[in-house]
Amino acid sequence: MYKTKAYSAASATSPLASDTIPRRDPTEHDVQIEILYCGICHSDLHSVRNEWSNVMATVYPIVPGHEIVGRVTQVGSAVTKYKTGDLAGVGCMVESDGTCPHCQDGLEQFCSNLTLTFNSPDKHLGGVTYGGYSDSIVVDERFVLRVPTNLDLPGVAPLLCAGITTYSPLRHWGVTKGQKVGVVGLGGLGHMGVKFAHAFGAQVVVFTTSPNKTEDALRLGADEVVISRNTDEMQKQAGSFDFILDTVSAQHDINAYLNLLRPDGNITLVGAPEKPLEISAFNLLMGRRRLSGSNIGGIPETQEMLDFCGEHNITADVEVIPIQKVNEAYERLLKSDVKYRFCIDMASLKSE
Amino acid sequence: MYKTKAYSAASATSPLASDTIPRRDPTEHDVQIEILYCGICHSDLHSVRNEWSNVMATVYPIVPGHEIVGRVTQVGSAVTKYKTGDLAGVGCMVESDGTCPHCQDGLEQFCSNLTLTFNSPDKHLGGVTYGGYSDSIVVDERFVLRVPTNLDLPGVAPLLCAGITTYSPLRHWGVTKGQKVGVVGLGGLGHMGVKFAHAFGAQVVVFTTSPNKTEDALRLGADEVVISRNTDEMQKQAGSFDFILDTVSAQHDINAYLNLLRPDGNITLVGAPEKPLEISAFNLLMGRRRLSGSNIGGIPETQEMLDFCGEHNITADVEVIPIQKVNEAYERLLKSDVKYRFCIDMASLKSE
Repeated sequence: MYKTKAYSAASATSPLASDTIPRRDPTEHDVQIEILYCGICHSDLHSVRNEWSNVMATVYPIVPGHEIVGRVTQVGSAVTKYKTGDLAGVGCMVESDGTCPHCQDGLEQFCSNLTLTFNSPDKHLGGVTYGGYSDSIVVDERFVLRVPTNLDLPGVAPLLCAGITTYSPLRHWGVTKGQKVGVVGLGGLGHMGVKFAHAFGAQVVVFTTSPNKTEDALRLGADEVVISRNTDEMQKQAGSFDFILDTVSAQHDINAYLNLLRPDGNITLVGAPEKPLEISAFNLLMGRRRLSGSNIGGIPETQEMLDFCGEHNITADVEVIPIQKVNEAYERLLKSDVKYRFCIDMASLKSE
Repeated sequence: MYKTKAYSAASATSPLASDTIPRRDPTEHDVQIEILYCGICHSDLHSVRNEWSNVMATVYPIVPGHEIVGRVTQVGSAVTKYKTGDLAGVGCMVESDGTCPHCQDGLEQFCSNLTLTFNSPDKHLGGVTYGGYSDSIVVDERFVLRVPTNLDLPGVAPLLCAGITTYSPLRHWGVTKGQKVGVVGLGGLGHMGVKFAHAFGAQVVVFTTSPNKTEDALRLGADEVVISRNTDEMQKQAGSFDFILDTVSAQHDINAYLNLLRPDGNITLVGAPEKPLEISAFNLLMGRRRLSGSNIGGIPETQEMLDFCGEHNITADVEVIPIQKVNEAYERLLKSDVKYRFCIDMASLKSE
């Protein structure tokens, strides 16, 4: 066991502040990574403030962060895929049982013995796992991802959550060339959805409540932008979409989007509005439409996504900040004042 | 044009009563059918009472009925599939444009120029189409189904709507041997869902609020019956279903059933509760679950279903009534007092 620097929150109402946390010494299958960049995901904020207590109560102190990119500093004796000096990524998961049917299928996110990167029972040290707002992390090589060497590293970090969260449903539901695909919301998730859907060859329509996001949406790869508050504009799109990726976690009317789907069309939620969604059954029955959800993706698909990003030169649009600005960044995140993801330059932690 | 006997309702508050309606003389592609039996579907009642006015307002007088089985009495000169004396069935659709991609795919139910069997603009005679509570009907051969000769005819009639409505989603979402399948509600639709899921080799669990339906559910093919008001019993089934067919149109908690699905599981609604469903987004996100709807099926699949029923000796469980008891049957239908479908013996209409 060794100590490493981190930023943690001591309670739901405390700011994140400098701290020291334990990490295990690498066992034979482990990879030790010096963290270079860590993206800020909205779920970091939800967990820090214990806003998902009904699903997963937060244990304090919490060290959030699951969009991790860094460099390998040490590997265990049985590690075959990584060596010291390699670039490496870690996403939302750090361990699973490896034996259940889901793990065997490479869908570790469904494993009932999953260990998340932070705030999850730590089988090695006890207590809970600590995330990426820290100097280093030790992870089983099965949960370490290869990072393409041609990409801008701060823009890679958010791929580990925002990237796979949008890539996976687009792939799973077969988005392909010639299809018409909607992306609802242009934030951290939405902007990645636009990039991927465009890269897959789809005709991409962004739905946003903010007319001032139009120019950016087109730059990111959208073919068209619809202001979702404009009923006429929405009506013109009725029954025309093969797939809609809904990235909005604020309350909004899903029925308006169900109506935009073709027969056999699918809308997938990757944001989680707090209150129940109100769904008209008729909107599902007519046209055999589907409403689904999706949450990250398995390790093989996460690697596929990173490789795809390397080949197509795709990264997240980030605003890089020092860790000392993380609390301020959280406040700005609440106002959607970021284009489109904050990424912490972890070098700033060394001066703490 | 010729006249035929029928039962019609003159307004949303009028009982069904004896009437005479026009039918077109068969054109070259038409089949004229003497109606022997017509099932009573809950949507007959909704339409007669104009309860779906926001989706499709009822035009009066209305002649409902879209679970039609009868005998061919005349065919047009270009008809190739039927001859006088053949058994024949007609379901919910009698015409579509035949040229759109959906029609080309045999998914006529998605055609935007679809003509329903009743209360739909009639392109031949003007006014609206008249359904199966009548002596005879004239239908383009493309929308006439072959009826296996080995089946009990009153039990065949409900296959044309209740049958295809349950067969189609079970097939579309790939229910097969070894899967665990839930059927919510044991009424006209549910009892067919149980029969089909059982015939497909699935392990079938029926969810019902009525403990007194247990014995019947097991007789129909269920392997297990869960009383859905029993929270403990429900909890024991958590995360174990591949597919759930929800046939209930009364208000009920869909989230309770979403929780019973495995990862990648699907729940399909074939009933349409009037009020919006309240859905927790988390229940969809966790496990990439799907909520979908389904509504009848295309003509090729309807024929496939009838052929399957012939091979496996499957019919609906019906209570046969004379048409003079149709208003009483509607009142009993509202109390779910039927096992499991009323079927009108249309011979009774001849005495009117």
